[in-house]
Formats: sequence, C-alpha cells, structure tokens
Amino acid sequence: MKIKRPTLLIDPDKSRNNLRKMEQKARRHGLIFRPHFKTHQSRKIGQWFKESGIDKITVSSVEMARYFAADGWKDITIAFPLNIHEINEINALAGKINLHVTLLNPESLEALRNKLEHPAGVFLKIDTGAQRTGIPWNHTEEVIELARQIKQIPNLHLEGLLAHAGHTYHARSREETLRIHRQTRDRLVQLRNELQNNGEDILISVGDTPSASLAEAFDDIDEIRPGNFIFYDLQQYKLDACSIDDIAISLACPVVARHKERGQVVVYGGAVHLSKDSFIEGSRRVYGYGMIINEEGWIVPEEKIIVAGLSQEHGILNVTPYMMKRIAIGDFIGILPSHSCLTANLMGEYYDIHGERYDHMNG
Amino acid sequence: MKIKRPTLLIDPDKSRNNLRKMEQKARRHGLIFRPHFKTHQSRKIGQWFKESGIDKITVSSVEMARYFAADGWKDITIAFPLNIHEINEINALAGKINLHVTLLNPESLEALRNKLEHPAGVFLKIDTGAQRTGIPWNHTEEVIELARQIKQIPNLHLEGLLAHAGHTYHARSREETLRIHRQTRDRLVQLRNELQNNGEDILISVGDTPSASLAEAFDDIDEIRPGNFIFYDLQQYKLDACSIDDIAISLACPVVARHKERGQVVVYGGAVHLSKDSFIEGSRRVYGYGMIINEEGWIVPEEKIIVAGLSQEHGILNVTPYMMKRIAIGDFIGILPSHSCLTANLMGEYYDIHGERYDHMNG
Repeated sequence: MKIKRPTLLIDPDKSRNNLRKMEQKARRHGLIFRPHFKTHQSRKIGQWFKESGIDKITVSSVEMARYFAADGWKDITIAFPLNIHEINEINALAGKINLHVTLLNPESLEALRNKLEHPAGVFLKIDTGAQRTGIPWNHTEEVIELARQIKQIPNLHLEGLLAHAGHTYHARSREETLRIHRQTRDRLVQLRNELQNNGEDILISVGDTPSASLAEAFDDIDEIRPGNFIFYDLQQYKLDACSIDDIAISLACPVVARHKERGQVVVYGGAVHLSKDSFIEGSRRVYGYGMIINEEGWIVPEEKIIVAGLSQEHGILNVTPYMMKRIAIGDFIGILPSHSCLTANLMGEYYDIHGERYDHMNG
Repeated sequence: MKIKRPTLLIDPDKSRNNLRKMEQKARRHGLIFRPHFKTHQSRKIGQWFKESGIDKITVSSVEMARYFAADGWKDITIAFPLNIHEINEINALAGKINLHVTLLNPESLEALRNKLEHPAGVFLKIDTGAQRTGIPWNHTEEVIELARQIKQIPNLHLEGLLAHAGHTYHARSREETLRIHRQTRDRLVQLRNELQNNGEDILISVGDTPSASLAEAFDDIDEIRPGNFIFYDLQQYKLDACSIDDIAISLACPVVARHKERGQVVVYGGAVHLSKDSFIEGSRRVYGYGMIINEEGWIVPEEKIIVAGLSQEHGILNVTPYMMKRIAIGDFIGILPSHSCLTANLMGEYYDIHGERYDHMNG
C-alpha cells in the first residue's frame, strides 16, 4: 500500500499482546471480561476477542450495539445512561440478543416499563467518586427504590452495579490510581451488601483501563470492562498504565514544511485526524497532542518530539536541531496519539504494515 | 423529523445572513471573495454561495478539492502546503478545473516540475507572524528565488502571496486583531513591492475570519478567504468577530442524567460530537466546550450554562438551581459549539428545523 495522506496504522502484534495480557489477568482473577469496544469500534479487531473466547462486550451507544450485534455478538452491555429517545431501537435489540442497559433514574425505567417487549438486563450506574454520572454510591435508599421498581417490570432483570472510576484519569501517581480502585471497590461492595440484605443478588462491574491495567486486587469484583487497553495511548502512558511500547496505533503524517529557524516541522495531520485531546508532558507541564516515533519498530527517539500545536489539518512538531537535519519534506512521521479512542473515531479505518485494512464503525 | 441522538442543527437564515454580510463587505472593498469551504464541507451549503454569484473557493485538502470539483466548482485554491504524495491527484484536478496550489519550499516545486501536465496557479504561503507555516515575510531572497524557479515551469503561474494570520485567534481584544490585520497587510505589501521590482505582478490573499469580520481597511489586499464566518462559533464570539446570535449551528443533545446535588446535567453529546476544542469563559478563565441555548430562537439564557466537561459520549453542563428545575430527562438541549469546523467535521451532516438534511463531505 502506498500511503499518501494521514493514515492510521495499527500494529496487530502489540494490540493482540495487550489483549492477551488483559484476558489472562481477568482469567487469573476469575473475572468476567466484558471489554469495551468503543476504543476500536472494529468488527475485524473484534474477531481477535472472539478468538480469545470472549463473548460478552461493552459499547457506548445504541448504534454501536447494533453495529456489533449485526456482526454476531450476542451479549452486549450499553454502558451509557439510557437515552429514552432510543427506546424502540433498544427494544428491537433486546428481541435479538442478550442486551444489558445502564440506568440511574426513574424516568428511564418508566420508558422501559412502557415500551420494552423483550427481556433485558439492567445495570445501575453508580458514581463512586468520578462525578461524571451515576447514583452517588452512598445514596442507598435511592438504589434500593430503583431495584424495587425494576422488579415490577417483567422483562427487566437487575444484574448489577456498574461504575466507571474515570477519576483515575486525573491520578498523579500509580498509587493514587490504586487507591481510587480500592475505594471504588469498597464503595460498591458496601452498596451491594445493603442490596443483598434486601434480597438482591447482583454483580459488581468496573471499567477504567488505568485500574484494570495497574491493579491486582479484584476480590469482590465480578466483571471488568476496560476498552482503551487494546491500543493504549499517551494519556495511559503518562498514568503508568502501559509502557510506550504497548501503544498499538500511530498516525502516519507526511511532512509538508520545515521551519529550521524556529525548530518546527509541520505535518499534514491535524485536529481532524488526531483530535484536540491532549496529554501533559514533562516537568514544565506542556500540553502535547502526540509524540513522534521512528519508523523502525515504533521507537520513541531519545530526544522526545512532541506535537505542540494542532489546527484543522496542520500538526506542529517541536524538533531538535539534530532531528531537523534528518527530516525531509515528504517524509512520513509516525505520531502516537494522545487519546487513541478519539483518533480512531476520527480516522474511521486502520491499516497494518502489510496494507491490510481494519474497519471502524465510522468508516 | 424526530431527533433521537446528538444531531447537528443548522439555522439557514443565520448562516445565509452571515454569508450576505461577508459577500457585501468583499464587494464594498472591491475584493475577490474566495470563501474557505473547510468549515461547512457541504455541497448543499455551497449552493448558497453559487446563488450569491461566488465562483471561486478555497479548500484545505486535495480530497476536499475533489469533492467540490465533482459538484461543478471550477476555480479552487488548496490553501494547505502542497503534499508531494498527492501530486497525481493534483495533476488530475489541474486537468479539469482552474486549480491553485500553495507552496513554500523548493521540494514541492520540484514535485510539480516533474509531474504537472496541466496549467495550475501557485500561491506562495507567507508567514506574517502566525508561526504556523509559510516563508517568513522578511525572507525576501527566498521568495524571489522561488518566484524565479516557478517561472521556469511552463505549466505553473505565480499568482500571489497567501497568508493566514492565525495569530488573531489569540488576540485579547478587537484592537489587537485589527493591529495584526494591519501588520499582515503591511508585511505582504512590502514583500509584493520587492517582487514587483523584480517584474512579478501578483495578488495578496488573506484569510482569517476574525480579521475579515472586524477589519474595514483592505486597501492593497486583493482577495479574502474566510471560512468560519458561515457558522461562526464561541471562539469567534469571544474574539468579538460575531455576536452570539450570528452562530448558525448548534448540537441538539438529549439529557440523560441530572445531578442536582452538584448542579450538573449530563447530556448524550461528547468529544466525538462537539470535539475537544475549547473556548475560555469569564474572568476566571474557565475552559468550556460549548454553551447552552433555549429552544425558542436559539437564545442564550441570562444565566450562561457552559459545557464544563466532555468524555467520549458524555457532555457535562454546569447549571444553576433555577435551570436545574426546568431541565428534565429526555429534554433536548441545544449547544453552541466552541469550534464549528471541528463539530461539523465530526457530525458529518446537518438538519434544519424542517428536517431537511445538508450534506457534509464526511457523511
């Protein structure tokens, strides 16, 4: 394959190795492994999971559930608060597969009560401290009341408590991530105990990639739903959740300008390719949008080169004089993404070094 | 049309009014109006420009040039540094339409010398201070040498100096934007004078929406290429380049969670819909990703509501207790985007209130 424009490359070996490690970890701890497919959004990459014996997945939208249900996946959790406007689509899916929805308020339950004609599982979304969404973990009465209402709906079955400890993304150390992971577990266990006293028998499902990658204590947890681990990225690297060598996608970008006098190289590859999501680099806490690798083996050069600026189609790299000499107009530069989910979402397809194409839902 | 998911709405009246104002301004100043289509990327919206008598356009990629050439546009400038890997596509386009490319280095010229079989125009990209890309405005010898080399290539014709004063996006006041605009003009005029002494007769083309919206001094400028003005957005509003009422697109997002205790509402509408590009709000300089409007007439409520956080599919709004009472699960909330080009690029289509669909190149 001849690359001409910004192209998202995938290293299947790295990616499958990430999968293998996470799958083995789940098995070692006796966990249900329900990986989140919002990162890759690819049927072809999904096959790797199937080959590893995985048959339960997580998605972040009804559309994504339909995309993967159409590819033969039969057990899907939509880990996003129920959108009552998609109740007909949810009902149709529930008629075909083993569907699990996520909710946190009586209004969503009401919509299901009125429209659901097929059996579906329900996870209650619990906020264990991330403050994005979910019923606060200590609002026990609210949770018990929702559980009671769920029982009254014949097609609904309460399956568990679902949390995403997204505040690990702001952790400043590995220890802080692990502390958040323990706190999330403790809070969910406490809430489950209250529900068990009330006669409910339910699962605990947790999600974030930093915890899933770093933690080794999963007692009382039943299910993990990490997604980003399949590619990892610079945000995860900065959280110590992966090594830089684990990052399995990079954006190949042609050099279109060299600005020697100010030590910058401009590539064709901007916010519409990488996304404007950033990571924080170095002791001076500079925002970066990507980091350069050498072509041979995706190695980060000793002198790190950061994508320092992005406009719609331009990426601006700060380079050392040594690297400036080695970079020519027309060269392809590989860039590790700050946030792989968003980069893949924008690019809509992947290629491996043999030119084989991997689909993405947006492609 | 029944909206179910995050949907990008367009107000054609606002948008066409923005077009009318810019078109009249160009005419008043005797300027060539070559609007940038990277903002809307829509053939249907392009029709409005055709109806206004506009027949010259700007795009930011070869793909975009092909998209609009296939729709009958015959005079297109690709205002992005030439990517030598797309030289065959450029050659094919030059055989069909009046194509203008942008370049700033001898390597790109070399690629054209070897491959170009049809006439094409060239703009030299000049950096007047934005420090993104371009030959620095005071590198006169470099520019003269490139002009000399262009003359030796039979199919190439030097048409002008092209600048994008993108540093207006960092201006802290209307006065600063106008000062940058004057400086850009002065620098380009000085460079043109040097070239004219050398026997060249060329145009000056400038681009950014803040300058094009705010300035009234365009003497010695031949062409303007603003793009964002067709929709505007919160970044432009913060730069005083538009009023909030001029913003012509908004993202309709269903409410999926209410968190009364911390004054936040969560909508289905995240980084894959709005983009992570932000604007800076208020004296405390908080980053925001969007701002809420009331359904009736796209009015910003007296108490401003900001999109304070975004994850892949979630948008988190900080709301006042008064607004919290008025917002119910399932309500659609309209969000003005921080950066309309990136939001449109992610959404890939638009709808007006009559349910009429407007295409986007990504759709």
